[in-house]
Amino acid sequence: MKEDEEGQLEARIRRLEDESEIRRLVLSYGPAADAGLTSLAASRWLKDGVYDWDSDGEPYAGRAAVDEMLQGDGHQGLIAHGVAHFAGPLLVEVEGDRACALNYSLIMRREDDRYFLWRVSAVRWDVERAGPLWKVRRRTNRLLDASGGGRQLFTDTLKDLFGEEAV
Amino acid sequence: MKEDEEGQLEARIRRLEDESEIRRLVLSYGPAADAGLTSLAASRWLKDGVYDWDSDGEPYAGRAAVDEMLQGDGHQGLIAHGVAHFAGPLLVEVEGDRACALNYSLIMRREDDRYFLWRVSAVRWDVERAGPLWKVRRRTNRLLDASGGGRQLFTDTLKDLFGEEAV
Amino acid sequence: MKEDEEGQLEARIRRLEDESEIRRLVLSYGPAADAGLTSLAASRWLKDGVYDWDSDGEPYAGRAAVDEMLQGDGHQGLIAHGVAHFAGPLLVEVEGDRACALNYSLIMRREDDRYFLWRVSAVRWDVERAGPLWKVRRRTNRLLDASGGGRQLFTDTLKDLFGEEAV
Repeated sequence: MKEDEEGQLEARIRRLEDESEIRRLVLSYGPAADAGLTSLAASRWLKDGVYDWDSDGEPYAGRAAVDEMLQGDGHQGLIAHGVAHFAGPLLVEVEGDRACALNYSLIMRREDDRYFLWRVSAVRWDVERAGPLWKVRRRTNRLLDASGGGRQLFTDTLKDLFGEEAV
Repeated sequence: MKEDEEGQLEARIRRLEDESEIRRLVLSYGPAADAGLTSLAASRWLKDGVYDWDSDGEPYAGRAAVDEMLQGDGHQGLIAHGVAHFAGPLLVEVEGDRACALNYSLIMRREDDRYFLWRVSAVRWDVERAGPLWKVRRRTNRLLDASGGGRQLFTDTLKDLFGEEAV
Repeated sequence: MKEDEEGQLEARIRRLEDESEIRRLVLSYGPAADAGLTSLAASRWLKDGVYDWDSDGEPYAGRAAVDEMLQGDGHQGLIAHGVAHFAGPLLVEVEGDRACALNYSLIMRREDDRYFLWRVSAVRWDVERAGPLWKVRRRTNRLLDASGGGRQLFTDTLKDLFGEEAV
């Protein structure tokens, strides 16, 4: 096999590995948050990464701010009663050392002997390669409700992912 | 490396890439539909592809019919109030230029300050390679309710995917 | 390409294929169970594999015990009315011929003209290579409720998957 053919195969494998690693990054947040492993959950972000969690609140700026939120009474009350921060399958596009991804986030809460769907959000993930791992530069959530925030976030992100196809 | 060994590695990489591309195809429908990007959502199908969405209704025949449905009052009313056309993770089997896949589809709707699960369906995807992309030949949905439609669709599809194992 | 470089590429491809095969293993249980294909669903397990489905009940020991449970009145009643044993996307770590994976399991049931979330569980999968396929050695479910069972299962599993990162 010629050197350049070998390099092409390796590049194709690396892209698949990147996709796998980014899935691992995104899918580990929910279980870590629901387990109360706040430091692991927060370490999904770059130190100066941002969690823009809703249009109605201030974004959490920096990994430490995400950790602090997860240690707070609000989140701790949720996990004491029973909660699932469920992430749907990821639509991801890798470009070199950056990637943009999109999925749905569902928060389910225990109530009596069943669960209810509390929040259903559109999510955009901007992630970066950081050494051997990938980390979150910015996570943006918007509710899929009458405000139109979720629709707008999906629209903008799909235009970035699909280009002219999405116009 | 001998030429045939090289070809074998390349074929294994291509199968993984095909799986990734088919996931991308399937997972982009929901966000595009919920964003109101009707043309992008409809372009998941081949021009003469079919969306057989329920046993109680006429299938949408052709990409233009899917686009028209998404532009209609029913769908537009859903997205104005808040809706998620959520696709579960995909079980997929690639055979050359065709693939068969299966997943669950969940439609969640906003109601007061929470969401409810409106439709939970078994889904079968018959997809085909179309140039560098994959497109949908036929999507079939059946509710998992007392009609037994969802059970039958899962049964038939699993027999195609798993052969004798599923008997 | 040198022999060892070729071997390295092949090992990386095999790891990705293993991940794909393990996803296929896990994602086929729900549709098979909901379709009533009890033998296919049970064959996800090794013959002496274990399904530890809740802290309040005896684990099903062996593939035949899983099959028997699925043939029983409880499960058959669920599928007659309409049910989805939905598995969320999988966080998986392969180590040679074994792998550990984690996801959420959601059981949705038909009620009137909609569905409700009956059980939301943390799930840990211990799986093994068995010839060309992978099979389940042990599946452990714990509800994400006030008992803390789900939180503990996620905590223990994330420590196995992420090591010092999760401390």
